[in-house]
Amino acid sequence: MSASAAPQVAIVMGSQSDWPTMSKAAEMLDKLGVTYDARIVSAHRTPERLVEFARGAESEGFKVIVAGAGGAAHLPGMVAAMTHLPVLGVPVQSKALSGQDSLLSIVQMPAGIPVGTLAIGEAGAANAGLLAAAILATSDEALADRLKVLRAEQTAGVAEKPV
Amino acid sequence: MSASAAPQVAIVMGSQSDWPTMSKAAEMLDKLGVTYDARIVSAHRTPERLVEFARGAESEGFKVIVAGAGGAAHLPGMVAAMTHLPVLGVPVQSKALSGQDSLLSIVQMPAGIPVGTLAIGEAGAANAGLLAAAILATSDEALADRLKVLRAEQTAGVAEKPV
Amino acid sequence: MSASAAPQVAIVMGSQSDWPTMSKAAEMLDKLGVTYDARIVSAHRTPERLVEFARGAESEGFKVIVAGAGGAAHLPGMVAAMTHLPVLGVPVQSKALSGQDSLLSIVQMPAGIPVGTLAIGEAGAANAGLLAAAILATSDEALADRLKVLRAEQTAGVAEKPV
Amino acid sequence: MSASAAPQVAIVMGSQSDWPTMSKAAEMLDKLGVTYDARIVSAHRTPERLVEFARGAESEGFKVIVAGAGGAAHLPGMVAAMTHLPVLGVPVQSKALSGQDSLLSIVQMPAGIPVGTLAIGEAGAANAGLLAAAILATSDEALADRLKVLRAEQTAGVAEKPV
Amino acid sequence: MSASAAPQVAIVMGSQSDWPTMSKAAEMLDKLGVTYDARIVSAHRTPERLVEFARGAESEGFKVIVAGAGGAAHLPGMVAAMTHLPVLGVPVQSKALSGQDSLLSIVQMPAGIPVGTLAIGEAGAANAGLLAAAILATSDEALADRLKVLRAEQTAGVAEKPV
Amino acid sequence: MSASAAPQVAIVMGSQSDWPTMSKAAEMLDKLGVTYDARIVSAHRTPERLVEFARGAESEGFKVIVAGAGGAAHLPGMVAAMTHLPVLGVPVQSKALSGQDSLLSIVQMPAGIPVGTLAIGEAGAANAGLLAAAILATSDEALADRLKVLRAEQTAGVAEKPV
Amino acid sequence: MSASAAPQVAIVMGSQSDWPTMSKAAEMLDKLGVTYDARIVSAHRTPERLVEFARGAESEGFKVIVAGAGGAAHLPGMVAAMTHLPVLGVPVQSKALSGQDSLLSIVQMPAGIPVGTLAIGEAGAANAGLLAAAILATSDEALADRLKVLRAEQTAGVAEKPV
Amino acid sequence: MSASAAPQVAIVMGSQSDWPTMSKAAEMLDKLGVTYDARIVSAHRTPERLVEFARGAESEGFKVIVAGAGGAAHLPGMVAAMTHLPVLGVPVQSKALSGQDSLLSIVQMPAGIPVGTLAIGEAGAANAGLLAAAILATSDEALADRLKVLRAEQTAGVAEKPV
Repeated sequence: MSASAAPQVAIVMGSQSDWPTMSKAAEMLDKLGVTYDARIVSAHRTPERLVEFARGAESEGFKVIVAGAGGAAHLPGMVAAMTHLPVLGVPVQSKALSGQDSLLSIVQMPAGIPVGTLAIGEAGAANAGLLAAAILATSDEALADRLKVLRAEQTAGVAEKPV
Repeated sequence: MSASAAPQVAIVMGSQSDWPTMSKAAEMLDKLGVTYDARIVSAHRTPERLVEFARGAESEGFKVIVAGAGGAAHLPGMVAAMTHLPVLGVPVQSKALSGQDSLLSIVQMPAGIPVGTLAIGEAGAANAGLLAAAILATSDEALADRLKVLRAEQTAGVAEKPV
Repeated sequence: MSASAAPQVAIVMGSQSDWPTMSKAAEMLDKLGVTYDARIVSAHRTPERLVEFARGAESEGFKVIVAGAGGAAHLPGMVAAMTHLPVLGVPVQSKALSGQDSLLSIVQMPAGIPVGTLAIGEAGAANAGLLAAAILATSDEALADRLKVLRAEQTAGVAEKPV
Repeated sequence: MSASAAPQVAIVMGSQSDWPTMSKAAEMLDKLGVTYDARIVSAHRTPERLVEFARGAESEGFKVIVAGAGGAAHLPGMVAAMTHLPVLGVPVQSKALSGQDSLLSIVQMPAGIPVGTLAIGEAGAANAGLLAAAILATSDEALADRLKVLRAEQTAGVAEKPV
Repeated sequence: MSASAAPQVAIVMGSQSDWPTMSKAAEMLDKLGVTYDARIVSAHRTPERLVEFARGAESEGFKVIVAGAGGAAHLPGMVAAMTHLPVLGVPVQSKALSGQDSLLSIVQMPAGIPVGTLAIGEAGAANAGLLAAAILATSDEALADRLKVLRAEQTAGVAEKPV
Repeated sequence: MSASAAPQVAIVMGSQSDWPTMSKAAEMLDKLGVTYDARIVSAHRTPERLVEFARGAESEGFKVIVAGAGGAAHLPGMVAAMTHLPVLGVPVQSKALSGQDSLLSIVQMPAGIPVGTLAIGEAGAANAGLLAAAILATSDEALADRLKVLRAEQTAGVAEKPV
Repeated sequence: MSASAAPQVAIVMGSQSDWPTMSKAAEMLDKLGVTYDARIVSAHRTPERLVEFARGAESEGFKVIVAGAGGAAHLPGMVAAMTHLPVLGVPVQSKALSGQDSLLSIVQMPAGIPVGTLAIGEAGAANAGLLAAAILATSDEALADRLKVLRAEQTAGVAEKPV
Repeated sequence: MSASAAPQVAIVMGSQSDWPTMSKAAEMLDKLGVTYDARIVSAHRTPERLVEFARGAESEGFKVIVAGAGGAAHLPGMVAAMTHLPVLGVPVQSKALSGQDSLLSIVQMPAGIPVGTLAIGEAGAANAGLLAAAILATSDEALADRLKVLRAEQTAGVAEKPV
């Protein structure tokens, strides 16, 4: 796993301003010892980069792609259109519609091109990291063990009483 | 109609099933003597065709592009990302969410890549045809005159009394 | 026709308070060397001015109209009802409903009277400017070239890495 | 009924297809002996007729205006913009969005131009008739009495048991 | 102003916290020289007061009732259920749902019991005042004249230019 | 307790047309041996009956009230305003808005007057019956036992395989 | 307060961060002299604790359960799935969607497993406390009397005039 | 591990009535030669079965779980709470709210417990099958090749022209 030269997960986002959200995915992968590369790939402003990235993702050695975008969020679906690798989508919270547009633009994909969509905002980004790890863990027992530890710690961290 | 041999408007849609909606755009253009070519270009299932179409639209001689799609409707925005020609988007009415997903996926584009969005469904498609004609009419007086006639007929066609 | 002395684009808005949003359209047109005139035309408080403006827009020499309003936003559709010029609508973000009312009031026009609608708020206003320019560029090669430069700069301005 | 020869209430609607809804307003006024005139006035397809109607409504002798429309429903608000008579709005149920667009387009008027909005569809139309009558009844005791009778009958018509 | 000693309009609201909104109705009536009485009548916490108020409104001499409430806003509809006087409803902006709950709770009345509903929040309250005045003006020419002056001033107050 | 002469649960609904929905509550109570009385009490058309019912519910011997209504659904909240008995609300599916208006009108009650709200439509009505029984079962062991049997049968009735 | 040693109501919540909301339920129970125990039970992070709590709630002596959670709020429904005790659900206001997700996740339960759902946020939590007390009061006359006093004080506390 | 006799994917659903939707996931897996087992596991009616299934999924040999449910859809999230295996959620289209409740109940999971959510209804179910295969293909080259073939056929199956 993390011994491999190429990063396992690509984290792509539509704009610089998505990083405060998407960094939660990166933090989760760091915690689990999963390697990743984070890039800005704007479906709308850099469509060539999008095509290049999505078409080359497999040969770059990525196993899973996490893509976040807001508003008319086309990045996750368009990446999914150009790779058979599993793509996870994070709806970034938008200004006017609080991410309802982002969510529908990402999740309502037609049959044939799936995007596994997470919650709007930071929780969704963290979970995209976790789910990417869970996907890799289907063939990496050590990672599966680390995941179980994290989940157990998470459980242990819940207090009994609110006050 | 302009003297140019190439059709003036491209009507593209994400799937065969969008034609009953998008044909309303074609009918409107027919009525106004505007030439067009209608094609299926699926952003998700035929991304190469999308790139080819959008990148080549100007050199094919198209002046305006009408793009319709439903659900996580990425076609209009992705075409707009790859051409500077005016792109008009038609949200096709989707099954579960009645086109609310289509509308938000098309209209909520980020600054830099505009899609002029029309109403959900057939009215929107007819209006995309009309607006494409109005755009062409900014430099085609004969078409502007035909538009005015159509608008006048439309006005004249409204009865005075409901019964 | 761009040699004409009259401004090419009319930017109208329902109220003084829409200017912080609509000024983004003006800035975009400035950047592209497109002339415009910005006016307050309230469909509700100044209906005479609305009729006068819309009926006279063509003879004033305008080629494209950008109209922004919020809430029960009737300005774009009512202007479109009284001119065959292309009308672009900008849903201004409203207080209680964050522009969902503005968006639906502008985009859901009946067949016969199109309004090319952009995103809610400032991004939509900037894009209305861009789309107005794209429309003018269908018959103005120099403007088309400036548009391509702007789009290329926009692409070049996207960083590779979020951090 | 007031002694005046002119009908007391104007019922206007954006299109022929609104009549099945708006006829419920007419039926209610018939039941209460209030005179009315029903007309098609399309804000979008017949803007001149709209101006003429709204500006002339007072001098025609109308006391109250009931206006129904669907989708981007501008008729009620635009009529209200051009008369100081009380205007009641009926959101006609639209196809894709079930009248949510109609409702917001009618009710979310800016300060200064009120439209008293009723429920979506036939219930709203019937209630527009009732409310128009209630408005007239503020200065017509005989009508107020007929209203009270109708309300009492309505109350009496509610069964005690569902089965 | 009518010669009657009793106030012409009742302004009722569900809670003290609705006053910052509902005071806009009062201000509008003040501006137009319409008398009113403002009271707190909570449908939920003071149902007896509600019944007493609504049943007695006519004999108190009120001609029109303006009722504002937020959330599951039952006050306007319940008042309307117990009087044949015209009732205008103001959806107060609620915390979690921004007044969408208030709006639907007020406007979606069943056939038989109308509430003329205005916009969410302060604009709606001001308009309720205006519409109440317009209703009274149907039988009060002096008030109709004052309304026309206010409307004319409103029109005159719209600047030509945003900057 | 079921031996008591007075019915334990009151099922009230705003209109005859709510019975196909509300009868599911009755069926559930029948199944559990809980006595009930079903009545039509329209908050809007029979407000006196509403007051009488709600004020008298305790002395009639009712222990729990199930109230269903659609649209601007005021019945559950208004009953709750006039009794301290537990009130359960069922949002009946409305025509235009599919019960979203009913749900918000019932559930968004202000602090001080609770309505325990169930799902929109028949499932909600059945569950109102079940929850009423659960409430009675807090002091009726035999009923608690019947509830447990019903729940166990429900569990046992779920097949293992979909085909 | 009942003589029983065990607390009568369990207040459970999905996370520490729900306490500012859920404490309103506790305050209401304090005011009414109803005993309770407040615990954190995360359906997602501590599913074992959830099962244990729900399965053991009856034998712990709880009579009513108040459960609050936000977002994809599964706690109330899952508790209800594992006990026949009455379960009241409080939708905690979520960040992106203001509790609309919480509300639908809690209220839209399938037939067979009811959750009596209250309003989004603090009002809902306070009302859950009140409704829990009302449920207990069906077999506790002293508590019923205290409830009536509280309701009367609440009524008395409503001022007559907003200013 | 793909040599294992146990099925690779578990397809679970909340009720028999979800099968017409969820069978699309099964068909997709059949097409790709991925083994699966389809079961009814109701979070609400069979919570024990839920715990047993989710806790045992890994030792049964499942690699990925596809879970579908409608309304207050808790199954996907509750399964995810009790396994570290990747869980994909399918929002089944509900009656009143067309799956908007299902979607929000599934996708809006808190940080720590991810569910990769697909579109509402049959498209989402088919895509859950596809994404499950894509996940397995991260460590199964033969399956990756079959996926690529399917995607290529899908692309080839898109006609050029709508008519």
